[in-house]
Amino acid sequence: MMRLGQASIREVGPRDGLQSWPTPVSTEDKARIIAAIAAAGVARIEVTSFVSSRMVPQLADAEALVARLPRPEGVRYEALALSGRGVERAIAAGVHAVVLVLAASETFNRRNAGRSIDASLQTFQRLRSAAAEAGVHALAVIGTAFGCPYEGRVTIGQVQSIIERFAALGISEVVLADTTGIAVPPQIEDTMRKVIAHWPDVTFGLHLHNTRGLGLANVCAGLRAGVVQYDTSIGGIGGCPFAPKASGNVATEDTLHLLHELGLKTSIDLDKLIAAAQFAERILGRELPGQVMKAGPRSRRSTTW
Amino acid sequence: MMRLGQASIREVGPRDGLQSWPTPVSTEDKARIIAAIAAAGVARIEVTSFVSSRMVPQLADAEALVARLPRPEGVRYEALALSGRGVERAIAAGVHAVVLVLAASETFNRRNAGRSIDASLQTFQRLRSAAAEAGVHALAVIGTAFGCPYEGRVTIGQVQSIIERFAALGISEVVLADTTGIAVPPQIEDTMRKVIAHWPDVTFGLHLHNTRGLGLANVCAGLRAGVVQYDTSIGGIGGCPFAPKASGNVATEDTLHLLHELGLKTSIDLDKLIAAAQFAERILGRELPGQVMKAGPRSRRSTTW
Repeated sequence: MMRLGQASIREVGPRDGLQSWPTPVSTEDKARIIAAIAAAGVARIEVTSFVSSRMVPQLADAEALVARLPRPEGVRYEALALSGRGVERAIAAGVHAVVLVLAASETFNRRNAGRSIDASLQTFQRLRSAAAEAGVHALAVIGTAFGCPYEGRVTIGQVQSIIERFAALGISEVVLADTTGIAVPPQIEDTMRKVIAHWPDVTFGLHLHNTRGLGLANVCAGLRAGVVQYDTSIGGIGGCPFAPKASGNVATEDTLHLLHELGLKTSIDLDKLIAAAQFAERILGRELPGQVMKAGPRSRRSTTW
Repeated sequence: MMRLGQASIREVGPRDGLQSWPTPVSTEDKARIIAAIAAAGVARIEVTSFVSSRMVPQLADAEALVARLPRPEGVRYEALALSGRGVERAIAAGVHAVVLVLAASETFNRRNAGRSIDASLQTFQRLRSAAAEAGVHALAVIGTAFGCPYEGRVTIGQVQSIIERFAALGISEVVLADTTGIAVPPQIEDTMRKVIAHWPDVTFGLHLHNTRGLGLANVCAGLRAGVVQYDTSIGGIGGCPFAPKASGNVATEDTLHLLHELGLKTSIDLDKLIAAAQFAERILGRELPGQVMKAGPRSRRSTTW
């Protein structure tokens, strides 16, 4: 296991977790959860999606939510957008970054975004320009990068051809997402080594789900490949419509606990983050899948080895 | 990640999971769960403990349970014992192996077994002889091998000195247990590499808990070190008295799913094992922490990468 210096977390629970939350969560409660995460020192939070409220009714309050968020020094709010209208709304609402998402699988992209991968990429060219004109950062997420529930196998070549297109748009940050928790560690390590070697100027992140228990095993594989940026979800909220009872994103506090125990540094206070996860659990009203929020850190019970 | 040929599972849920189960489980229900696990092809099952029923009332039916178990070809039943009386009972009941357990931490061993590590080892000399005379296999488990909730750090040297004593007793199989889910992957890899190199004639297994979400990450670390034998628990039943809501042993079906996806072969049928986990969940009457029993195997939704 390599020992790397610095790692970072991009919290995605308010968007990826709450977009499929089965019961209504008020705008005020969302803001309180986000404020608690920010207070723990998480510097980047994907707070919502600017998409059709018909598609994602849970996030229909995107403007109202961003308007009521506290604005502490050093915290950046990010939001997903798929269309020109979405990026306009996100910029008008005052987010710091827009997150452009497509899927590496043609079928998944058509079902999820309603268009082909090529059509998504053509749209993104305009969105990227609009963001740049507004002085807003744009990052790209490639979903189903490690396998697709419809098509099965997704090759590294498919992922690389999309990265190439994003790089040509001047996008400097690309997140590879294991949307349905299909990836296994050697696949993560192999893929990330290849893309990092091929695009040394692009910052790569990983967005991992714990659907089959491999969330932190895949984080470890990413670390071995040199990836130090992870999308995570407070308390592990979220899930996958294809597996109703399965876990969602890898939990923020479980990931942070691992990163710190491996000797990596972050901007985040683990105790405050655990408190934020417990706060989210109380507000959301059901047990969350995060483990460290229940067991506590290992160092509290044993000194590091 | 190394690709190894063959791996094996030692199912410990009926003992390690049910010993702290909060509601009564009938002997018949235990036998039905064990039969379902055996029917999936698991060749070794730690079915109970022959200890004081005052200490572990959940397993007070040890003799009755072993008596009613089916005896399919190739399935070995194993049972924990700490004393001469326990080993006598286990042999009389007809188990195939006795599991001798102590902790690498002096404090933990005194609290758990009521005696010093040295006193445990002296007892085990007699127990080992009794088992050998009866033609029963004896294996050793070293608890808190990666850290202790009371003492904190446990060094590799502490673990090695106990392995040395076991090897001197002629014990050829030693399982290192992360009793309270404290281990991190580089610690597992480092420790296992060292002990395998030092005792090439001893078969080493790992007994891992998912208390802090690192169960399968630690399995991957064990595999890198060459460990191909894992103690696991059906559905991930079990837990830790120090962390009431935290997960227990790494789930058998999640571990098997990983092993198979990494290309290792076992004697076990994953579909039947998932059915056994779902059966255990219905019988035990509460949601179990296993993930693959909820999400299904990745290969069912995507071909292997």
